[in-house]
Amino acid sequence: MADEVILLDSWPSAFGMRARIALREKGVEFDMREEDLSNKSPLLLKMNPVHKKIPVLIHNGKPVCESLVIVQYIDETWGPESPLLPSDPYERAQARFWADYMDKKMDSAGRSALWLTGEAQEVAKKEYIEFLKVLEGELGDKAYFGGERFGYADVSLIPLYAWFYVFETLGNYSIVEECPKVVAWASRCMQRESVAKSLPDQYKIYDYFLAVMKKRRAQ
Amino acid sequence: MADEVILLDSWPSAFGMRARIALREKGVEFDMREEDLSNKSPLLLKMNPVHKKIPVLIHNGKPVCESLVIVQYIDETWGPESPLLPSDPYERAQARFWADYMDKKMDSAGRSALWLTGEAQEVAKKEYIEFLKVLEGELGDKAYFGGERFGYADVSLIPLYAWFYVFETLGNYSIVEECPKVVAWASRCMQRESVAKSLPDQYKIYDYFLAVMKKRRAQ
Repeated sequence: MADEVILLDSWPSAFGMRARIALREKGVEFDMREEDLSNKSPLLLKMNPVHKKIPVLIHNGKPVCESLVIVQYIDETWGPESPLLPSDPYERAQARFWADYMDKKMDSAGRSALWLTGEAQEVAKKEYIEFLKVLEGELGDKAYFGGERFGYADVSLIPLYAWFYVFETLGNYSIVEECPKVVAWASRCMQRESVAKSLPDQYKIYDYFLAVMKKRRAQ
Repeated sequence: MADEVILLDSWPSAFGMRARIALREKGVEFDMREEDLSNKSPLLLKMNPVHKKIPVLIHNGKPVCESLVIVQYIDETWGPESPLLPSDPYERAQARFWADYMDKKMDSAGRSALWLTGEAQEVAKKEYIEFLKVLEGELGDKAYFGGERFGYADVSLIPLYAWFYVFETLGNYSIVEECPKVVAWASRCMQRESVAKSLPDQYKIYDYFLAVMKKRRAQ
């Protein structure tokens, strides 16, 4: 029986992008179903009753939720010959740490930079670039976060890149000036078909963000 | 060469407890060093420059940070004959999902219930018990979150138990009445030496909490 793989997703979601990249890295065919997050489908509510969030991977009818859990599930289920996580336990821990860093630091700073106003927004914008500089320092002269090979930390972090133009425009800074190594790493990742196919165009994300902001302000 | 294993920790920390339990499950000798979180040690700041938080596991001089990353590192480094994570990828994903549930839901509701005031605190107290009821439902008639064996999700969730008396007193509810299966599961876990040795007494945590609250209010 062929695997049935469905991804409940939303195209601008950095978390959804992680799952898309991992599936493409492993050469898994999947049916990406776009969710309307203002009117979630019964399937989404049934498959992720706890968080009610995308992405949800449905593999032969069984759901896996939370993007980093999904990426690890994909890594452990398909293509053992091209693992995303390294085999050494210490390197695995480092990869997990940096993947988690996006969720703990970048995501909240990013949301605050986008949605707060006034002084709190200014603080968040500065925080966002400071957090990126931590990634710049960690990257150093390595090609990827794990060294020479594209892996788990890269899959988890590269979706940030799709939102760079939004943050640059909003924050009035140039990320390439502040974090040239991060931008070079992002370009390197974008040369992979799995990444290029999974990340939407930065300007499309910007237009999306403007539309959402306009809608929120009108409410 | 014998392994040198140091755990930078703080005894009331639910996150620290996870690392302690995992080390004891694997029979690893370790040196637990209590940190003064109001005056963090140079070693902590050096070993976890990104988050500056406990717990930090230092294995032969190399740091591993973030409690769930630490527990997985311990599981992959020691005692492969008694794994905490199951071998099946789908069961592994479920275990990771429930471990992460504590960090995403219980932790923030718990902090809000403890530190907010007025209406916001009432909402958080109700949320805390609602989130526990989700665990009650997931547990069902299973002995442990993964089924018959104590494992990764249990290690990650059982530290909640050490704080139950604080939440019951504060929230004016009886957790055993609301979530009898969770309490029965906790008692089952407490029969393990690894857990009993790693969780402080509930009344000691309560006294600690009262002292911290008194200090904050005086400031």
